[in-house]
Amino acid sequence: MSTLQAVHNIPEICAQLGITDVVLSPGSRCAPLTIAFARHPAITVRTVPDERAAAFIGLGLAQSQRRAVALVCTSGTAGLNYAPAVAEAYFQQIPLVVFTADRPPEWIDQLDGQTIRQTDLYGAHAKGSFTFPADTTHPDAQWHAARLVSEAIELAEQFPAGPVQVNVPLREPFYPKQGEELQFGPVRVTRELPGSPVLPAAVLQELAAAIRSTSRVLVVAGQHPYHADLLLALRRFAAAYQVPVVGDLIANLHLPAAAGYDQRNRPLGRQDVFMAVPEPGLKEALKPELLITFGQSLISKALKLYLRNARPAQHWHIQPAGAVADTFQSLTKIVRMEPLDFFELLPVALPSPHSLAPSPGGEAPQAYTAAPDATRVAPVPRLTWPGGGAHLTEAEATAKGAYLRPWQAAENWADGFLREFMGQSNQPFNEFTAIYRALQHLPDHAALHLANSMAVRYANILGLPAGRMVEVFANRGTSGIDGCTSTAVGAALARPDRPVVLLTGDVAFFYDRNAFWHNYPTPNLRVILLNNHAGGIFRLIDGPRQQPELEEFFETRQSLRAENTARDFGLRYLPVSTFAELESALPVFFAAESGAALLEITTSSPTNAEFFEQYRAQVRTSFS
Amino acid sequence: MSTLQAVHNIPEICAQLGITDVVLSPGSRCAPLTIAFARHPAITVRTVPDERAAAFIGLGLAQSQRRAVALVCTSGTAGLNYAPAVAEAYFQQIPLVVFTADRPPEWIDQLDGQTIRQTDLYGAHAKGSFTFPADTTHPDAQWHAARLVSEAIELAEQFPAGPVQVNVPLREPFYPKQGEELQFGPVRVTRELPGSPVLPAAVLQELAAAIRSTSRVLVVAGQHPYHADLLLALRRFAAAYQVPVVGDLIANLHLPAAAGYDQRNRPLGRQDVFMAVPEPGLKEALKPELLITFGQSLISKALKLYLRNARPAQHWHIQPAGAVADTFQSLTKIVRMEPLDFFELLPVALPSPHSLAPSPGGEAPQAYTAAPDATRVAPVPRLTWPGGGAHLTEAEATAKGAYLRPWQAAENWADGFLREFMGQSNQPFNEFTAIYRALQHLPDHAALHLANSMAVRYANILGLPAGRMVEVFANRGTSGIDGCTSTAVGAALARPDRPVVLLTGDVAFFYDRNAFWHNYPTPNLRVILLNNHAGGIFRLIDGPRQQPELEEFFETRQSLRAENTARDFGLRYLPVSTFAELESALPVFFAAESGAALLEITTSSPTNAEFFEQYRAQVRTSFS
Repeated sequence: MSTLQAVHNIPEICAQLGITDVVLSPGSRCAPLTIAFARHPAITVRTVPDERAAAFIGLGLAQSQRRAVALVCTSGTAGLNYAPAVAEAYFQQIPLVVFTADRPPEWIDQLDGQTIRQTDLYGAHAKGSFTFPADTTHPDAQWHAARLVSEAIELAEQFPAGPVQVNVPLREPFYPKQGEELQFGPVRVTRELPGSPVLPAAVLQELAAAIRSTSRVLVVAGQHPYHADLLLALRRFAAAYQVPVVGDLIANLHLPAAAGYDQRNRPLGRQDVFMAVPEPGLKEALKPELLITFGQSLISKALKLYLRNARPAQHWHIQPAGAVADTFQSLTKIVRMEPLDFFELLPVALPSPHSLAPSPGGEAPQAYTAAPDATRVAPVPRLTWPGGGAHLTEAEATAKGAYLRPWQAAENWADGFLREFMGQSNQPFNEFTAIYRALQHLPDHAALHLANSMAVRYANILGLPAGRMVEVFANRGTSGIDGCTSTAVGAALARPDRPVVLLTGDVAFFYDRNAFWHNYPTPNLRVILLNNHAGGIFRLIDGPRQQPELEEFFETRQSLRAENTARDFGLRYLPVSTFAELESALPVFFAAESGAALLEITTSSPTNAEFFEQYRAQVRTSFS
Repeated sequence: MSTLQAVHNIPEICAQLGITDVVLSPGSRCAPLTIAFARHPAITVRTVPDERAAAFIGLGLAQSQRRAVALVCTSGTAGLNYAPAVAEAYFQQIPLVVFTADRPPEWIDQLDGQTIRQTDLYGAHAKGSFTFPADTTHPDAQWHAARLVSEAIELAEQFPAGPVQVNVPLREPFYPKQGEELQFGPVRVTRELPGSPVLPAAVLQELAAAIRSTSRVLVVAGQHPYHADLLLALRRFAAAYQVPVVGDLIANLHLPAAAGYDQRNRPLGRQDVFMAVPEPGLKEALKPELLITFGQSLISKALKLYLRNARPAQHWHIQPAGAVADTFQSLTKIVRMEPLDFFELLPVALPSPHSLAPSPGGEAPQAYTAAPDATRVAPVPRLTWPGGGAHLTEAEATAKGAYLRPWQAAENWADGFLREFMGQSNQPFNEFTAIYRALQHLPDHAALHLANSMAVRYANILGLPAGRMVEVFANRGTSGIDGCTSTAVGAALARPDRPVVLLTGDVAFFYDRNAFWHNYPTPNLRVILLNNHAGGIFRLIDGPRQQPELEEFFETRQSLRAENTARDFGLRYLPVSTFAELESALPVFFAAESGAALLEITTSSPTNAEFFEQYRAQVRTSFS
C-alpha cells in the first residue's frame, strides 16, 4: 500500500458519508489532500485563496444544503484563518469537517516554515479534534486513520451539529508520479442511525395538563431553519391551546407550513415594534406564566430584555440534546425532544376535557414513537391530529383567549403603524426606509441573508411583505460581521436555482470583500449594500453617540464606495442615493437576467440616525 | 470607586510599562477600553476595522519599535481574527498585549450576541492568558486587576517575547456621562529588571578551546533584527577565530557593525546560490564539524537541507532562554547566553596560545559580567577586545583558513555569477529579474519587508546591493501570506521618517488588502507587487507542476489587477510590464515626494517559471 493510500481514502469516506462539497485553499503541505479530493468523482472541490472567506463559504454551503461540508487547508496560519467561521459554525450548529494539513509531529517547533501547533486548533469552538496518524504502514494505523475520519464526520453531524478538526500530518513526497492513477478505498464507514429521544407518556400528559391549565402560555422560537412539518405542528399546537407563538425573522415562522396556510394561527413577528412601546398596561398584559421556547438565538433585544424582566414562573426549553442556555434567567424544565415531536405530540397527549377521569385500568397511554429529524431522513408518517379546540374547557378557552388577544392586538397595531410610518412622504433619503422598500421587491423563493449588525436589526423590525416565501439566514451564532458576504456566496453556490439576496452594511461588506475572490460564478447573488461610510450602529446607541470619541473610535468613518470592488469582481453595479433612483434600480437589480449585482445605497449616517430616532419616538407615543 | 475604574487604569499601567501604541478595532462591548485608551494622554490609538489586518499592523508597529504594542477588540469572533497575527508574534517573538473585551462569565453560552468562549483564546500560541476580574469592587479584586495587567505586559516582553491575552469581561453601563472626566490611576506596577544569564568562566574557556581546536567551525545566523553591537562582536569573533559566518537577508548581517565596517570579515549571504551547485567536492569542502547558531529561522532551504545532511559532530545553539529547536537534527549544546555576550566573550575567554599553561594559582579567570540586551536598556560599556589572530597558533590558523577559504570562494563565485546572469540582455520580462533591478534602487535606511512566499525566496537569492543600509523584515515565524502587507503598514506608521518597501506577490497582496483600510496616511510606504495572476510558486516546484490540478487547485489563477485597490486607497499607481517601463518607473516610485505608491509588475507565470528554470540550470552547471 502506498504511504499516502490512507490519505487518498479520506475523500472516499467523506463521499460515503454524504459529503459532496469541499472548499479548498491551496498550499503545498496539503497537496495529497488536494489531489485526492480533486480527483474523487463524487466530490466538487472549489478553491478559495483567503481561508477566512473560504471557511465562511463552506459554512454557507453547509447551511444551505443542510449537510456537512469539508474544508481543506495547508499547514501554518491557514487553519487559524478558519477560526471565525469555525466558531460561527459551532454556535449556529452547522456541520463542518476541517482538514488541516500539517507537518509530522517531529517537525513541530523546529523553525520550519508554515508550522504552528495545530493539535486542537479551535479549542472550545470545535466539537472534536482528531489527529490523523503520521505513519500508516501498520494495519492498525490504517484502521485508525479510516475510523477517525468516519467518527469525525459523524460527530460533526450529530445533534447539535458543529465543526470538527482532523489534523493530517504529511511527509514528503506529496505528489503522485506523472500520469499515476489514484485508488480510492475500499473503505468501511460506520454510520450512526438517526434517532430522537422519547419522553414517557405520563410526563407528556403532565406537560399537556400544565399547558392547558395555565392561562398565560407563550411560545417563542429562536433561530431555526425553515421546517415545513414543524411549522404545521406549531400552528396546530397554537390552535389547540390558543397560545401566541412569536419568532424573529430568522426563526422562519413566516414561511408556509407543510399543508396549507392558516392566517388565523399566523405566528407573530412584530415584537421589535410593540415591545418598544413604554406602556406598562401592555407589558403587563403580555406577561407569560409559562414560556415555551425552542431553537437558537433571538434577534429582538426588546423581546429578550422583556422576557428577562418578566421572569415567567416556568420556562421550558425544547431541545433533544446538548447544553441548554438559560437565556431569560427563568429556565425550569429542559424537554429532551425534537421540537417537531413536542408540538405534534402535546395536543395528542392531552385527554379531552370530557375524559379527564383515569381510563379503566388507570394507566397512561402508550409511549409515543417520536419521529426523527426530517432533514436527515425521509419523514415517517405523522400522527393524526385530533382536531383543535376540543382540548380546552370553556373556562380554559376564555382564559387563554384573554392572554392571546393582546398579543394579536399588539401585532396588528404594529403592522398598521409600520405601514403608515414607512409610507409617509417627505422622508429624507435614509437606510431604514430604503431597506423597507427594497424588501418589497424580494423575489419569492429567495434566500435572504442578513448581515450583522444593523442590517439584521433593521430587517427584523421591518419584517417581510406578508406571504412572501423567503427563507432568512443570519450568522447569529456569534453575530460577527466577518463572514456575512462569504456565507451568502456559499449559499449562492449551493443552490444556483435560488436567488440569494444579501442585505449588508459597509463595514461588514468591505471587511469580507475576499468573499468574491475566486473563479466560481454566482449569477443568482444580489448584494444590497447600505453604505453610510461608517459603523452607523454606534450613532443609534445612546452611550457612544454622546462621547467625543464617536467618529474616530466607534463609527470608524471610512470612505470606500463599492464601485471598484464591483469592477474587480464583475458585479453589475447600481449606485443609488435617492428614493427615485432606488425605485427605478430595484426591478433591474432583481431581474433574473442581470446576473450577480450590487446595489449600493449611499446614505448619511447622521440622517439615518435622525430618521430612526423619529421612528423610535413615534413608536413610543403612537400606541393605542 | 467607579465600577469601571479598574478598567480605566489599564492604559495607565500600559503607559507606565512603556506601551505607547494601541491598535483598536471598534465595537460595543469594548467601549470602556476604547474610551480609556483614547483619552490617555501618553497613548496613541489607531482604529482599524478588520481585526486580522489590525493585529498584523500592531505586529508591524511592535517589530519596528522593538517594544510591546496593545491590541483592543470587542467580544465574539473579533479576537479570533487576531489569531494569525498572534501565532506569527509567538513564533517571531514579538510582544503583543491583546485585550479582548468579553461579556461577564455568567452570560457565556446563553445565546447572547457576539459571545464565544474567550478564555485562553489563542491556546498554544500565546505566552499567557489572563482573565480580568468581572467585579472590581473588592479591594483584593482591584489589586488583582492591576497586578495581572502588569504581569501580562512583563510576560509579553520577557525573552523570548511574544503575545499574551488579557480577557476583560465588562458589564453595562459602558459609557461615562456626557462631559465626565476619566481618572487614570494612581497605579503601582511591577517591573522585572533585565538580566542576562552568565556561564562560568571555566565553561567559556572550554567552549573557546573547542572552537580553537576544531578546524571546521561554521557560524549560521537565523532571523534576527539589526543589532549593531552584535554585528561588531560577530565580526571580531570571526576574525579572531577565522571562521565563516553565514546568514540570510533576514539575519540582517549585511548591515554595518557598530564601529566601522571591515570588508575582510564580511558575513556571507549567497548560500541560496552556491548551495544549489551539485558539486560533491564543494559540499565536502564546506562541511562543518562544529556548527554554531543563533537567532530564529532560515529562509535558505538549500542551506538548511545541506546542514541536515552534513550532520556536524557538534551543533551549539546560543539562546538565553526558552525552548530550542533542533533545526539540523544535530544539536549537542544549548548555550544560555545572549548571542552578543557569547560572541564578545568567547575571544576574551581564550588564553593566548603563548600562555596555555595554568596561571600561577591554577585558577580560571573571574566570571565575566554579561551585558543586558541592548534593545531594552542603554548599553553598558563593552569589554575591550584583545585583538584578532593572537588566539590561534600557526597550525590552527592554517587549518581554519583551509576551511574558511572555500566558503569565501563560493560566495565570491556566486556574486560574480549573479551579476553576470542577471545582467544578460535579451531576457524576457520576468519577475526574478524585475526584483533584481528594483532592489538596485532601494533607498538607503529603508526597511525592506519581504512577503511570503516567493518574494522572500527570490530576494534571498538575489541579495541586496553591496553596502546598502536596509534592514530586512519578513513574517518567518509562521511564514504565512495572511498579514505581510499589514505588517509593512504597521512599520510605516511606526517610523514615518523611514521608507518602508514591501515586496510581495499577488496572492499575498490581495489576501491582505484590508491593510490599507483605515484613516492613517503612510506616505513613506512603497509596495512592489509581483502580479503573475497566480500562486506562481507552484509552477516552480517539481511536484505540482506535473499534476493536471496545477492551474485550478495549486496556482489558483486569479485575474485581479491592483488598479482598483490603488484607487480605493489613494495609492499612487505605477503599472509596468516591460523592463523599459520598470526602469523609468523606479525613480518616480521611490522618490520621497511621490507619497504612498504601488508598483505593479505584471508578468506571466509560465515565463517566470521558464526563466527561473534557466537560472537554476545555469547555477548547476556554471560553478568552477
